[in-house]
Amino acid sequence: MKHSAYRAFEPVSFSQVTIEDAFWGPRLQINREKTIPHIYHMCQQTGRLDAYRLDWKPGDEHIPHQFWDSDVAKWIEAASYSLVSMPDPALDALLDEVIALIASAQQADGYLNPHYTVVEPDKRWANLRHGHELYCAGHLIEAAVAHFQATGKSTLLTVACRYADYIATIFGQEPGMKRGYCGHEEIELALVKLYRVTHNTRYLQLSQYFIDERGQTPCYFDTEPAPDYHALGLEYHQAHQPVREQTEVVGHAVRAMYLYSAMVDLFCETGDETLLQACKRLWHHLCSKRMFLTGGIGSSMLNEGFSSDYDLPNDTAYAETCAAIGLVLWCHRMLQVECDAQYTDIMERALYNGVLSSVSQDGTTFFYVNPLATQADLARQRWFDCACCPTNITRLLASFGHYIYSQNEHELVVHLYVQGTVRAKIQGQPVVLRQETAYPWDGRVNLTVELEGPVEFALRLRIPGWSSGAMLMVNGERVDLNGLSEHGYAKIERVWSNADRLTLFFPLPLVRMYASPEIAADIGLVALQRGPLVYCLESIDNAVPLHRLVLPRTSAVQIVDESDSGLDGVVTGIADALAVGSTDWEEATLYRPQPPGMQPAALKAIPYYLWGNRGVTTMRVWLHEQSI
Amino acid sequence: MKHSAYRAFEPVSFSQVTIEDAFWGPRLQINREKTIPHIYHMCQQTGRLDAYRLDWKPGDEHIPHQFWDSDVAKWIEAASYSLVSMPDPALDALLDEVIALIASAQQADGYLNPHYTVVEPDKRWANLRHGHELYCAGHLIEAAVAHFQATGKSTLLTVACRYADYIATIFGQEPGMKRGYCGHEEIELALVKLYRVTHNTRYLQLSQYFIDERGQTPCYFDTEPAPDYHALGLEYHQAHQPVREQTEVVGHAVRAMYLYSAMVDLFCETGDETLLQACKRLWHHLCSKRMFLTGGIGSSMLNEGFSSDYDLPNDTAYAETCAAIGLVLWCHRMLQVECDAQYTDIMERALYNGVLSSVSQDGTTFFYVNPLATQADLARQRWFDCACCPTNITRLLASFGHYIYSQNEHELVVHLYVQGTVRAKIQGQPVVLRQETAYPWDGRVNLTVELEGPVEFALRLRIPGWSSGAMLMVNGERVDLNGLSEHGYAKIERVWSNADRLTLFFPLPLVRMYASPEIAADIGLVALQRGPLVYCLESIDNAVPLHRLVLPRTSAVQIVDESDSGLDGVVTGIADALAVGSTDWEEATLYRPQPPGMQPAALKAIPYYLWGNRGVTTMRVWLHEQSI
Repeated sequence: MKHSAYRAFEPVSFSQVTIEDAFWGPRLQINREKTIPHIYHMCQQTGRLDAYRLDWKPGDEHIPHQFWDSDVAKWIEAASYSLVSMPDPALDALLDEVIALIASAQQADGYLNPHYTVVEPDKRWANLRHGHELYCAGHLIEAAVAHFQATGKSTLLTVACRYADYIATIFGQEPGMKRGYCGHEEIELALVKLYRVTHNTRYLQLSQYFIDERGQTPCYFDTEPAPDYHALGLEYHQAHQPVREQTEVVGHAVRAMYLYSAMVDLFCETGDETLLQACKRLWHHLCSKRMFLTGGIGSSMLNEGFSSDYDLPNDTAYAETCAAIGLVLWCHRMLQVECDAQYTDIMERALYNGVLSSVSQDGTTFFYVNPLATQADLARQRWFDCACCPTNITRLLASFGHYIYSQNEHELVVHLYVQGTVRAKIQGQPVVLRQETAYPWDGRVNLTVELEGPVEFALRLRIPGWSSGAMLMVNGERVDLNGLSEHGYAKIERVWSNADRLTLFFPLPLVRMYASPEIAADIGLVALQRGPLVYCLESIDNAVPLHRLVLPRTSAVQIVDESDSGLDGVVTGIADALAVGSTDWEEATLYRPQPPGMQPAALKAIPYYLWGNRGVTTMRVWLHEQSI
Repeated sequence: MKHSAYRAFEPVSFSQVTIEDAFWGPRLQINREKTIPHIYHMCQQTGRLDAYRLDWKPGDEHIPHQFWDSDVAKWIEAASYSLVSMPDPALDALLDEVIALIASAQQADGYLNPHYTVVEPDKRWANLRHGHELYCAGHLIEAAVAHFQATGKSTLLTVACRYADYIATIFGQEPGMKRGYCGHEEIELALVKLYRVTHNTRYLQLSQYFIDERGQTPCYFDTEPAPDYHALGLEYHQAHQPVREQTEVVGHAVRAMYLYSAMVDLFCETGDETLLQACKRLWHHLCSKRMFLTGGIGSSMLNEGFSSDYDLPNDTAYAETCAAIGLVLWCHRMLQVECDAQYTDIMERALYNGVLSSVSQDGTTFFYVNPLATQADLARQRWFDCACCPTNITRLLASFGHYIYSQNEHELVVHLYVQGTVRAKIQGQPVVLRQETAYPWDGRVNLTVELEGPVEFALRLRIPGWSSGAMLMVNGERVDLNGLSEHGYAKIERVWSNADRLTLFFPLPLVRMYASPEIAADIGLVALQRGPLVYCLESIDNAVPLHRLVLPRTSAVQIVDESDSGLDGVVTGIADALAVGSTDWEEATLYRPQPPGMQPAALKAIPYYLWGNRGVTTMRVWLHEQSI
């Protein structure tokens, strides 16, 4: 179970976690029942599955694309995770069928990529910068590991190992090998997963090679004939400097997150502190200068990524779904190394906002970008030519149980508050922890320990960074949280007995949030947040165009428990606000020396993750505030 | 002199206008002495002149580009205009030399475009949508007309007529002719100019054909193999509808302005009211929904043009120099048809702000885009691969005298207040009007009539739309402006005697301007304007980052007459303002529930047209306002 000497905790596998949560339960059920079948259907319909038949010929409708494989692989990963929490023989059989198809496309030397096998057979490894071959290989490996862990079958794992073995003969520092690496990071973290399952150090070494080689001079990409599309430079690929020297998060945001995740993984296996230190520097830079309130990252459409410090425009925010998911992956790895709530707070922020916003309530339409304000016509789509986001959200939700708990030999950690149970083994003893909560709508969390006999261990409970006035009771007795706090977690160390009870209580006011004055886009604006949930306005709920609403600082925002249509169970916010210039501005006038007047107006806010579920509408997170 | 039965006035040619103005005089002198030579030099250095030698071969450094000709043509136009106000034998000889070179490149059939003669000889007329051939022909015609009018020489006019004659054999509705038109409008207005000089109705008919054919279905562009670059659609070319049916300004902003200008020109020659009515609708749409405070137009980089109603973002505003110049051309034409200050107000707004901002004080560096806010690194450049803007501003400034006055048989109109004289002939009598003014710094304008004997005529004096409390004295006697006002002009009709004096006085406070509440980008913001000049803040003058400055509504903005370095003679504004969060916000915090504080701060504003002349700096027109 424990792979690493260098991290304080291991995630508790979601196979040991049950979720019976009013907030997450329906989301995971819809992911299982709607999203996973929808994505299979789309992969089938778009030719992504048939591509593995390798019978494409010029003129055929669907040309196998360079990164189609990654979509099928992420579907396999999601479906495999799903089998863990909900056995499903039909899905199991479907997986076998798809895996057999994929295996049939593997070449004699182990190579596996339909595009470069049938469409551009002479271009294998010729365009590492933009070709996505190693990226697809990485997703195949992740899928194989997931399928193996879920089913015990090594059908896909064998394929993945053969492919990885072949790749290891191609890339490396030895004479005659290619000194290249992939323009889109992914294989690096996948190879660590493969090493952890197979214990074959060759995979760890290959991952290490890719990480070490990245950003060295002369740059491998410069030796390729492939152009620098869009003139985005080496920063786009995080290949502008050796990774250990990087201090700023730059370039394509998804690539950056996958790279940093792999760097943590390698630290965990090798103890190479230089990788961890680089990650900490990059983390600090990201969190202090380049992140949206929703946990969205990547400001610019031009590079699907980072722009400049504090450049966080709300309406043109790219905030790709995959980037927020990548951020969750990175946070989760960091927080195993050091159980520090700075990582968990951001992970939770991204999960409840910038990640969850990307999929509709019915599970079949998706946002690729997640801006914080829209003028008009952004609607979720059933699919994208580049379908990375739907396939990424489905695999994340299918493995959501993975993110809730960690443990080591002496400790059990609760990162997220989600109703259900975790079954762990601590000091060799079975430990069950049961959570009962209506979080994030309600701030009360009841925790019950179930033991066969007394066990001494520490329980770490996260005290969210957003909370103020949290209270903890142990067996009915209030405990001083200040004395227990360690990096944002309350650490309760004792000999636990069966049926010991803890109650956490987080007050959940709707609070006003303000942005750093360095963020030009948010000066004079205010956002609403309650617990981990960022709120937004939708035009469907507000009569006045959203950009004209002004929330006076003196106006109290009331919490409303909704039971009406479309928002069942959701807590919304309402307030008396003002509207700029409803009636006193002549339509034909664009500019004038008299200021527009203000009229009273009602304002209603809903959680950001829910927006865009009731028809096409405009949306806005940051509102004008009248400060005096 | 008078060509048209359908317009109320004719512009007074700048050959009859002298400018001795403290504001415009130095700008025109620098244009003559620095910009025109600089542009010649750049045309020479970049191969634009050598292209006419037609000796290009593959592998040569400079590949003659499809629209290089237009840059050389606009230089000829500017240099010709310059000869009118300032005879210069060396420039005259240089023009002869360049014109001889151009003439040498004309093909036997009259065709004249180096790119399609030597680089892609098989592609002549094959890509009307993006090829710019007719656009270049249009600029050649404008240059030829300007050179002929300035020098009396028909060297280039003969070339232009031969080319136009040839074009008239290619395009038209008759069987066997191409039913096409240019993707970039320009030739339409040029052909009307050529008709006015030559009185050859063939040119008028060809212009009419291009205008009538545009936007008809089936669309000619769809018959071409050329792709729709960037998927911008037919709106990009204003070819989505017949021009008379168009009601919204769409697509590439420069193209739109040149089209609308040609539509007015054709109305003036043909009396076709449907063209004028379309222009009035488009005018209303532009002015009420799609124009920046500076007179800049075209919000989006994607199409170098219009986006959606009220989408007027300050920092990403494209506001191309050429588009503001095109707007001046259109305004100027509209206001000859109807002497209505709605057109003059916008013309003046564009001239003093969005146009004049594009060229540096030293006349040798240029902005291509003119946003209303910058974060960092926008600096004027000496040249652009697509050099339309430098060559456009130089020809506009060289003909600036053209825009000041209009006349007809009975009336003389003053549109702009610029010190100097105009010499007109009214009722057959010579009339001189002399302006003395320090406008726009000072609001007093003294006008003196110089006559050989009494003449009865009406003098129309524009009362700017931005002014409030204007006063008029005639021979020392105050006159009630209300009684004289006609569409924003004071019309004083009388028998004038030599040395009659008028004094206009416009109060010039620094006023606060507000944007329509429909403009999301400007809610809660205020701009400063004084007379026709929009003001901005530059970081070089302000210690606090500009986005953090807040101007309380109660804070008076003081006018300062500058005499210090860099801003000689300029009126600036200073105010006590506030700065958001200077000291009470921890650097590593991006978001927090406590609002940032406010500290007192000084604010200094300069005229927008002057920004970017003192090193690289940030700039901002719209400022946060504390309204209560």
